[in-house]
Amino acid sequence: MRALALTDNGLTYLSDYPTPTLQSGQARLKIRRAGICNTDLELVKGYLGFRGVLGHEFAAEVIEGASDWLGARVVGEINVSCGTCDLCLEGIPSQCRHRLSVGIRQHDGAFADQLTLHQSLLHRIPDAVTDDQAVFVEPLAAAYQILEAVHISPRDEIILIGAGKLGMLCAQVLKLTGASLKVVTRRDSQAKLLDKWGIEAVKMADLPASRANVVVDCTGSAEGFSSALGLIRPRGTVVLKSTYLGLPPADLTRVVVDEIKLIGSRCGSFEAALRALEQGLIDTASLVEQRYSLSDGLEAMQAAAQPGTLKILLEM
Amino acid sequence: MRALALTDNGLTYLSDYPTPTLQSGQARLKIRRAGICNTDLELVKGYLGFRGVLGHEFAAEVIEGASDWLGARVVGEINVSCGTCDLCLEGIPSQCRHRLSVGIRQHDGAFADQLTLHQSLLHRIPDAVTDDQAVFVEPLAAAYQILEAVHISPRDEIILIGAGKLGMLCAQVLKLTGASLKVVTRRDSQAKLLDKWGIEAVKMADLPASRANVVVDCTGSAEGFSSALGLIRPRGTVVLKSTYLGLPPADLTRVVVDEIKLIGSRCGSFEAALRALEQGLIDTASLVEQRYSLSDGLEAMQAAAQPGTLKILLEM
Repeated sequence: MRALALTDNGLTYLSDYPTPTLQSGQARLKIRRAGICNTDLELVKGYLGFRGVLGHEFAAEVIEGASDWLGARVVGEINVSCGTCDLCLEGIPSQCRHRLSVGIRQHDGAFADQLTLHQSLLHRIPDAVTDDQAVFVEPLAAAYQILEAVHISPRDEIILIGAGKLGMLCAQVLKLTGASLKVVTRRDSQAKLLDKWGIEAVKMADLPASRANVVVDCTGSAEGFSSALGLIRPRGTVVLKSTYLGLPPADLTRVVVDEIKLIGSRCGSFEAALRALEQGLIDTASLVEQRYSLSDGLEAMQAAAQPGTLKILLEM
Repeated sequence: MRALALTDNGLTYLSDYPTPTLQSGQARLKIRRAGICNTDLELVKGYLGFRGVLGHEFAAEVIEGASDWLGARVVGEINVSCGTCDLCLEGIPSQCRHRLSVGIRQHDGAFADQLTLHQSLLHRIPDAVTDDQAVFVEPLAAAYQILEAVHISPRDEIILIGAGKLGMLCAQVLKLTGASLKVVTRRDSQAKLLDKWGIEAVKMADLPASRANVVVDCTGSAEGFSSALGLIRPRGTVVLKSTYLGLPPADLTRVVVDEIKLIGSRCGSFEAALRALEQGLIDTASLVEQRYSLSDGLEAMQAAAQPGTLKILLEM
């Protein structure tokens, strides 16, 4: 089958990647569409040392497996958990100590014609949700995880920095809380998109220091984290939403003196994301930058790596 | 009067420091006893650029002021707040945006014969609490602030690192929660003291990675913070209790991926600290390392700077 894989020779397009075997409890998925995430770009740079097929945002059709799944349009959770460690038993399989992660850690991903995945990780895509929309379920679930990690009050004053692919989903989710939301932008295109959604776009230089109750940092950069600490008020909460390159220098003294909370947040509820898409609460169409065929995957990855690029879709 | 002050010439003992004037609403305190804190040592090194009399842990007697305070034995809160900023109006005067801090920021401290302080900051010392004990009210309140910042469950597994002056008070407070508590020690003397209190002392090398629900970092060092992140389990909470030198490199990616909470915590409830001391719940006597006369203050500060030294008291 066709696949876009990380090998010892780097990112490679293969037309003869072995079709995956079906293991007990798994379904065979025919991938219909997939999305390129910043994590994919980081993996190519060496993050986690991953080898295998990339891709963890996708919509697919079940073509082999239990009869009640056959033919279903599905999305799939990315954390393949053991079910027996302390964190699994506490109901936090996304933090399983022995987890594999689809397209990220020791498990092939979705930039391929097929993927085999345990059926317990599948969610049916409602009829009202298109394949294009369904590709956004995984990152949208991650955006909803902000609301699981932190209680957002309708009285909060939130600033979001890092208005990229994930940030734009987080902004739409946060808007729905009723809280005051400002999103820091660097590009006119970002401000325009936010304006369309009725979300206030601001420039960093125009924001007062130390005033926001909640700052959501989607930048994944040391500079962004430093800005987040500058914007948060005493006793406020900074949500860290993206992984960072290296070990950013952190003003922990300010965290202590101002009694700030820093809260990391990662994967979230697929159910919530699917509900929001079905209800038409989230605009994903405006986030699609370009489409490529899987065969042009290398070109697609190059396009995704350009600063300011929104979602690049792969069509199988 | 006598005073130990930070001047442009560094830490200086003065026998002719001007006796403070009494301003509206203030009481004049005759300092009876004071304690040296790590913050004092940091201020000497240049932290916050403070100039003036050091000292923010003290027991005193009111010798001038409103008649209902005259003659009272008191301790004093250290945050002199404006009463009008947003944080004061929200009932968080310790985070006042315009605050002065006794012996730390733009307000003389207690390493002197006298100190004038607004009466609203005073708390009476119960008869059952000695001057020696009362000196510990300020840092003990800071230890209790852990319980204000974080919900500690009796089912939690807590590790405390940094078993110094503040850490030993935090350990005693945490022990009272019923949670499992281990304190990392480097010195036999620390382990002996903890053993006396029925608290388990452990070596860092014997602790499993990524298992504690709660880690309290009282080290104030980049190395300590890094250890704290190594010990905390996914979805766990790291309480930052000491200010840090510089900007420690921080593995924020681990914070995101493991969905860790980092929570800064500073000054706390004097009422809680006074109640605990009155009820005999906290042993402070064992924490007194040595006593010096105020006139020997320079020598006392040198003693306090020796690694592993517990509380040095100044007697006026």
